[in-house]
Amino acid sequence: MKLAQLSESSGASTATIKYYLREALLRPGDRVHTTQMHYDEHHLPRLRLIRALTDVGGLSIEMVRDVLTARETPDLTPGELVSACHVAPACCGTASEHGADHAAAMSEIVALAHRQGWRVSYDTPAVVTAAGALDALRSLGQAGTREHIDAYAQAAETVTAADLRTTRATTSQAIKALVVTSVLGDVLLSALRRLAQIHHLHDEAPARITALSNSAPGQ
Amino acid sequence: MKLAQLSESSGASTATIKYYLREALLRPGDRVHTTQMHYDEHHLPRLRLIRALTDVGGLSIEMVRDVLTARETPDLTPGELVSACHVAPACCGTASEHGADHAAAMSEIVALAHRQGWRVSYDTPAVVTAAGALDALRSLGQAGTREHIDAYAQAAETVTAADLRTTRATTSQAIKALVVTSVLGDVLLSALRRLAQIHHLHDEAPARITALSNSAPGQ
Repeated sequence: MKLAQLSESSGASTATIKYYLREALLRPGDRVHTTQMHYDEHHLPRLRLIRALTDVGGLSIEMVRDVLTARETPDLTPGELVSACHVAPACCGTASEHGADHAAAMSEIVALAHRQGWRVSYDTPAVVTAAGALDALRSLGQAGTREHIDAYAQAAETVTAADLRTTRATTSQAIKALVVTSVLGDVLLSALRRLAQIHHLHDEAPARITALSNSAPGQ
Repeated sequence: MKLAQLSESSGASTATIKYYLREALLRPGDRVHTTQMHYDEHHLPRLRLIRALTDVGGLSIEMVRDVLTARETPDLTPGELVSACHVAPACCGTASEHGADHAAAMSEIVALAHRQGWRVSYDTPAVVTAAGALDALRSLGQAGTREHIDAYAQAAETVTAADLRTTRATTSQAIKALVVTSVLGDVLLSALRRLAQIHHLHDEAPARITALSNSAPGQ
């Protein structure tokens, strides 16, 4: 198909597609004429994946590149697997150590993981990120008790088990699928949390938010 | 305290603090000399909150502004509450309708919410976001069965119940605390998911990732 058709089928503008081509996220089409390229059946699904990861998943172009690389490596090494699983806009960006006691939070996250039966080590990027979030919550006086963080770990276990049940095929396929599921699953989970919050706050404060479903934002 | 002291106590550079002052996220100090301002005990906790939301939570300055406004409004209106609960880097950014069947996904998210006993409406931003993520997962051939999304909803309910147990004081305080907890809680949950994934993939593919804890990334 031509560039214009690829644009129409994917919903991405031709300028966006050209940008992905320049960034080598999409491989070039076959030249069929001095000024015309032909894009085949492999371009469209790949373009849809890139759009889902950027538009829905909120990933940067560099993060998309990491996800695509992980999916295409025939046999992932341990290091590549760990990297691929850590691609997420909200996860493992800047390891933050602003809070009151980052070292204590690190120990608590490792202890939490052990209570769940997860084998993790101190140098796993997600441990640093989780500790940063816990430390920040505490330094702001927002809970972070053992009961509180255990509930988070339980929720993480619930969604991971569900992800693995539905993506299980071969191990290699499961790992590659999980990279994408993780990104979009974070968005789904974040949004569902907001729905649960709205519901519970409605129960808590009926007088305050009775008109919740009817009112326009900002009124 | 002086600007330099505020910088030292908070870990934010003086340039960053000046930026927040220009953006009116921090109120100006009291002028004690032609070239010197005095910052009081209210500046430091507020500065720490801003840093936690940006560095750990990944929020933009505009998102931080929304969170701060929500916290400071004496009596939140329904519209403001809804807006405040939806501040999240991964949530409710661009409502995406790229997938195969966004309308069907919207109906399914509303049905999912009803199964959980959550009262939601079609115009809730988080419904649109959740539907976009579900639609994208499906269009990429990544599960999204009823069992799969019910597990996500159950996880969302688990963390929300835990958040509310630990932030319960007065309703107004609970709502304001929840805005911050939501942002940092998303980061914590995303990171814990990655830990659960690493653990389970380790079980799944021992030969492939035996050296997980020992190897350097990229090896």
